Amino acid sequence: MPVLSKNQIKFVTSLKQKKFREEQQLFIAEGVKMVKELLQSTIQVKQIYATSEFLRTTKIDSDIERFEIKENELERISALYTPNEVVAVCQIPEKTFEAKKVSGQLTLVLDEIKDPGNMGTIIRIADWFGIQTILCSLQTTDLFNPKVVQATMGSIARVDLYYMDLPIFFNQQKAENPLPVYGALLEGENLYSRSLSKNGFIVIGNESNGISESLLPYITDKISIPSFSHFKTTAGEAESLNAGIATAVICSEFRRKSSL
Amino acid sequence: MPVLSKNQIKFVTSLKQKKFREEQQLFIAEGVKMVKELLQSTIQVKQIYATSEFLRTTKIDSDIERFEIKENELERISALYTPNEVVAVCQIPEKTFEAKKVSGQLTLVLDEIKDPGNMGTIIRIADWFGIQTILCSLQTTDLFNPKVVQATMGSIARVDLYYMDLPIFFNQQKAENPLPVYGALLEGENLYSRSLSKNGFIVIGNESNGISESLLPYITDKISIPSFSHFKTTAGEAESLNAGIATAVICSEFRRKSSL
Repeated sequence: MPVLSKNQIKFVTSLKQKKFREEQQLFIAEGVKMVKELLQSTIQVKQIYATSEFLRTTKIDSDIERFEIKENELERISALYTPNEVVAVCQIPEKTFEAKKVSGQLTLVLDEIKDPGNMGTIIRIADWFGIQTILCSLQTTDLFNPKVVQATMGSIARVDLYYMDLPIFFNQQKAENPLPVYGALLEGENLYSRSLSKNGFIVIGNESNGISESLLPYITDKISIPSFSHFKTTAGEAESLNAGIATAVICSEFRRKSSL
Repeated sequence: MPVLSKNQIKFVTSLKQKKFREEQQLFIAEGVKMVKELLQSTIQVKQIYATSEFLRTTKIDSDIERFEIKENELERISALYTPNEVVAVCQIPEKTFEAKKVSGQLTLVLDEIKDPGNMGTIIRIADWFGIQTILCSLQTTDLFNPKVVQATMGSIARVDLYYMDLPIFFNQQKAENPLPVYGALLEGENLYSRSLSKNGFIVIGNESNGISESLLPYITDKISIPSFSHFKTTAGEAESLNAGIATAVICSEFRRKSSL
């Protein structure tokens, strides 16, 4: 088995940067559970850098380049705080968005989600609640950021994300194929008591600023998650749930109602 | 205003460790929003280390010691990656658990939640859904770990946590005042379609291992969050929602049903 060269280390670590991921159309995924799952998914794994233990115990297609490396070499290429046996270099899947992918479906729309952990969690939630497509504003964190990849816990292979200019998309969507566009807003209607459609868009706003001004005109249905708190916070300022938590509660209620 | 001495730096940073927090019965909280909220809460703030800007613009009771410090000094005492104007040293509140605190209520029970971020998120969820009391196993992450404090976003002042030997507690509770004990388990009943009580306990298991063997005998009602995923994961292994997300979905459904 070949030994890891300086150029290889440089190549793999360069993929932590969006610029190089876009240039190469490659991303990295790590850890035993994650990589085993990707090997069985539609994601194309190109290279495996792993300990002898992983290589010995994992079925790997013969067209995947493999490199047996030591723990200390793994540390040099890993993007994780505690590397775990394997780093895989994978192809970024080529996907083209078509309007029919969202027409009869419930679709999540991420409006500037910035935190990679939140982003990964939201993709996992989409997977759990059977939401196949997520549309992201151009300012939303890159799906192939290693922290997002890891936080998806494998859901990255099962949910399709598209980055686009959202106001342009909604403008077109409104003209051609109007579907309800739900947005969580403070003044929204109680999520529990109002009816919810089986298809349409659920817009999740930025962690600090909520839904952008430029998207507000496209929200057709304002919803809110009722608080049962016994307290008012300082200066009447509203508490909030984080973006991932709000997404989970909203998706859960949509699916509960649609399963009645 | 006094200047920060080496001993003070040592004192404040020592509070990142549980041992010293217990010795001193003090903890640290940081950042403008958090500290302003604590100043207006029942939490007793003892010392404020802050920039001149914060001290100038914030109402601080005269019995709180205050130290004006520079940004670089703030970095030396902060537990955060990006410190934000102020570090406060606060008293750990003295609270004694009494059974009546949970008798007519919905109470969360954390069985070895380890991740400080999850822990903080769960406290925030409890606050939102009006759950006043959380019981924690002795192995659950310390509430006053600075990462937990920050992740609660102020909810730390509004929710009461008690650490205890949970099997002993449930054994006693079962004998004296039986209430339903809900646990999220794979084989549980669909959360949406079954009835849910207005009081009782919701047990949230460890991130990797779920609910402990020693608590399973006390679970009276097994529940599960239905998955709507279009996919099966590798080797039939169940996907999962993370502990915080599962807590949010469960609490939401309890409160929705109780508000009908």
